[in-house]
Amino acid sequence: MALEGSQACCLLRLSLFLFLFLSAVSGSHPPSERLMSSASAIRAASNQTKKTAPDVAAEVGRYADVAKRIIERAVFGAAQNRSYRRLADFTDTVGNRVSGSQNLERAIRYMYDAMKQDGLEVHLEPVKIPHWVRGKESAEMVVPRAKTLAILGLGSSVATPPEGIEAEVLVVQSFEELKRRASEAAGRIVVFNQPFISYGETVSYRAFGASEAARVGAVATLIRSVTPFSINSPHTGWQTYRDGVKRIPTACITVEDAELLWRLARNKQKIVVRLVMGAQTLPDADSFNTVAEIRGWQRPEQVVLLSGHLDSWDVGQGAMDDGGGALISWEALSLIKDLGLRPRRTLRAVLWTAEEQGGVGAQQYFKLHKENISNFDLVMESDLGTFTPMALQFTGSDAARKVMEEVVNLLAPINTTKLEAGAEGTDISQWMQAGVPGASLHVADSRYFWFHHSEGDTMTVQDPHDMNLCSALWAVVAYVVADLQDMLPR
Amino acid sequence: MALEGSQACCLLRLSLFLFLFLSAVSGSHPPSERLMSSASAIRAASNQTKKTAPDVAAEVGRYADVAKRIIERAVFGAAQNRSYRRLADFTDTVGNRVSGSQNLERAIRYMYDAMKQDGLEVHLEPVKIPHWVRGKESAEMVVPRAKTLAILGLGSSVATPPEGIEAEVLVVQSFEELKRRASEAAGRIVVFNQPFISYGETVSYRAFGASEAARVGAVATLIRSVTPFSINSPHTGWQTYRDGVKRIPTACITVEDAELLWRLARNKQKIVVRLVMGAQTLPDADSFNTVAEIRGWQRPEQVVLLSGHLDSWDVGQGAMDDGGGALISWEALSLIKDLGLRPRRTLRAVLWTAEEQGGVGAQQYFKLHKENISNFDLVMESDLGTFTPMALQFTGSDAARKVMEEVVNLLAPINTTKLEAGAEGTDISQWMQAGVPGASLHVADSRYFWFHHSEGDTMTVQDPHDMNLCSALWAVVAYVVADLQDMLPR
Repeated sequence: MALEGSQACCLLRLSLFLFLFLSAVSGSHPPSERLMSSASAIRAASNQTKKTAPDVAAEVGRYADVAKRIIERAVFGAAQNRSYRRLADFTDTVGNRVSGSQNLERAIRYMYDAMKQDGLEVHLEPVKIPHWVRGKESAEMVVPRAKTLAILGLGSSVATPPEGIEAEVLVVQSFEELKRRASEAAGRIVVFNQPFISYGETVSYRAFGASEAARVGAVATLIRSVTPFSINSPHTGWQTYRDGVKRIPTACITVEDAELLWRLARNKQKIVVRLVMGAQTLPDADSFNTVAEIRGWQRPEQVVLLSGHLDSWDVGQGAMDDGGGALISWEALSLIKDLGLRPRRTLRAVLWTAEEQGGVGAQQYFKLHKENISNFDLVMESDLGTFTPMALQFTGSDAARKVMEEVVNLLAPINTTKLEAGAEGTDISQWMQAGVPGASLHVADSRYFWFHHSEGDTMTVQDPHDMNLCSALWAVVAYVVADLQDMLPR
Repeated sequence: MALEGSQACCLLRLSLFLFLFLSAVSGSHPPSERLMSSASAIRAASNQTKKTAPDVAAEVGRYADVAKRIIERAVFGAAQNRSYRRLADFTDTVGNRVSGSQNLERAIRYMYDAMKQDGLEVHLEPVKIPHWVRGKESAEMVVPRAKTLAILGLGSSVATPPEGIEAEVLVVQSFEELKRRASEAAGRIVVFNQPFISYGETVSYRAFGASEAARVGAVATLIRSVTPFSINSPHTGWQTYRDGVKRIPTACITVEDAELLWRLARNKQKIVVRLVMGAQTLPDADSFNTVAEIRGWQRPEQVVLLSGHLDSWDVGQGAMDDGGGALISWEALSLIKDLGLRPRRTLRAVLWTAEEQGGVGAQQYFKLHKENISNFDLVMESDLGTFTPMALQFTGSDAARKVMEEVVNLLAPINTTKLEAGAEGTDISQWMQAGVPGASLHVADSRYFWFHHSEGDTMTVQDPHDMNLCSALWAVVAYVVADLQDMLPR
């Protein structure tokens, strides 16, 4: 990965050089003069409110120099690898940080201090968050032979009795098969060995497997981890008990063990498993969304919000999910501040709390701030990894899309000028549903779910050069949108 | 994988059909007659001893029909997926089987019974083997913060005291760095964070890290697992204490944790780790090499030996290392027997015991049988996975290579006609060093070391179609070499 990174870096350096060179040759002013005068030129340029497409293109196009300066600094300049280093220092110091944990408290304090020390305006907004603790947990196949099963209990699961639950196993491959074999489920531990189709589709087994099995009398569930690839790695995640259905203990097992149990069952072997889980749900805990700002010079009440979540699961380091998203959101503000830039509107980085429990911090934020919804220009979230950026995903009106198409053109020096439909992000979804334009990062994420919610979510999966690119993209988009004459049309 | 497998299967089916069709069109006899008469034709064909190249090509070429029948049966016919099913039944029933364990005893009994029931002549040859047991083990970073480190103690390691060893950590990236920083090592736990170059090169850290660190006063070693990829997966393996150097406890940690410790150390953080290992070396245990044969009709004392090892590490299922190699060696004999074939010389499948401890079963076998070395025609081992076969690796004289080049041409229907230099296999190396021609399988093994000696070595990494191809290749090569008029020239 390091070698590939440095090769890509050389190519980018070359293309940026050519880009700058060609701009200088073709421009009417020498490049130094153009760079110095760009901010004032932009401010003077436009004062009508209804713009034609050429107007938009011309207005956004005047940010080409600023965009190049941001990119240069993030990818090759003084800020090179800074977001990676900050992420490593943060996650190496704090570790993982699940909702309700002391580690999450430490993480918030750490980031508050760090961003303050970076010269940003920082404040905390209180949120009550769930406090589920894993406790000691284990599973063992005891018949037909003794074998330890690697497990991770699922967030919100109840415990087993202290001595555990020992029961015969029913293995099914789908909810349909469970329905068909409902008469066999009573008193059993139901094992779901569903194939991985996609995260969006397959995660329903993790989310609702326990209640579906409890409906037909199961005493516990063990669910194949939601991943396309495994080195015997269990993956955790939140699960939801359906109302009016008995709450039974539930955990994920590995792909390998799910397949083993399925093969044994297919061969008509009797299987008995002993499951012990000490999970507890404690009273809600006090926490905070962490907010850092660069106040707008002209319309400080208008906001471009860029975000990631600070909480993680209680395994690995939470470097990928979502340390990376939080850190590039901070980094974007640092880059803009470093360059002495201050946009027309406020740039606000929000590091959400308790995203993994269903966007708890973000819901609270929406409730508190929705009365100002007309001042929210664009809401951005990065929560699908900070690997090589491929495109910006965008949700908004056609008119807004036309503006954004011009904005991503500014990313030509790093070859990420693609604008895709459909921004994603638990924490920004309420704003988007209410009509605020939204944006998210599409990265080269083919391995994202290999590590997701597992002990494998560590700094080892992160690449400094990729994070430079993500930070540059994030900063250019946020800055330019926050500085345009007009807010994005709804 | 399943989809790729079935596409490859279609292509192969088509190419086999074309091959058969073209053979039938171009041959002088109708295919049915040619198939029936091939064995007697071969026997009658050749009775000189010094052969010219065209003679060899002609003699081997007469096996084209037999080779096609073996391939057809293994890949599309009645034996399709049999080696995979047998491997799944075996490893699901027995589990992993480390040297000295009851599981290895069970495995030998299982395979003895299964191969006997398959109609082969089977016997066991006694061997005394090492008996190292892992015991309970754990490691935790306690300074600068509490973090569990996933470990696997290394085979032959001594234990820590029952209360463990708690010591400050020295992290180095190479033996050279350890030498340079020798003065810092006394009383420390030395962590090796060596980069993965190749298994052959990098494994020296696992093998000798403990003794090198003990020489400079270390109290224990934790070694980065020898793998190019990890989902926080520790990998075990054998290690060797140097004579005259203090024996200190040694285990592998994950790539992720090795990198974490290295980053913390680089940032001048004091790191303290507590290591607890209950490993024991017990008196040598009784075991067996498991030998199954099809006796040659003409020269039964002359032998083509094909093999894999039956023991594994005490993690995962040992499906890849080396269940697959053992199972295709059995399968090769089954295919030949099923087709009513009996070669001129004896085909002998040997399932070695205690390979992982340094080829202990194979050394004993060599000692017992080397007096008959002149009767060993070819020794084959598969111990680098049974994924998609790419080539046969061969070690032997130029004259023998010429014969083998003709033999692999018979594998055209499955596109594996490549003969490469350099057969590999711990268990056949003594024979090759003594001048016996040797062969091994080169498979598409880019992920082999991801799973090697870890909990990830399970049936999930095996593919039935790939195993069909490996079995077909193995059977054709073994059968044809065992049936040629002459032994391979030395």
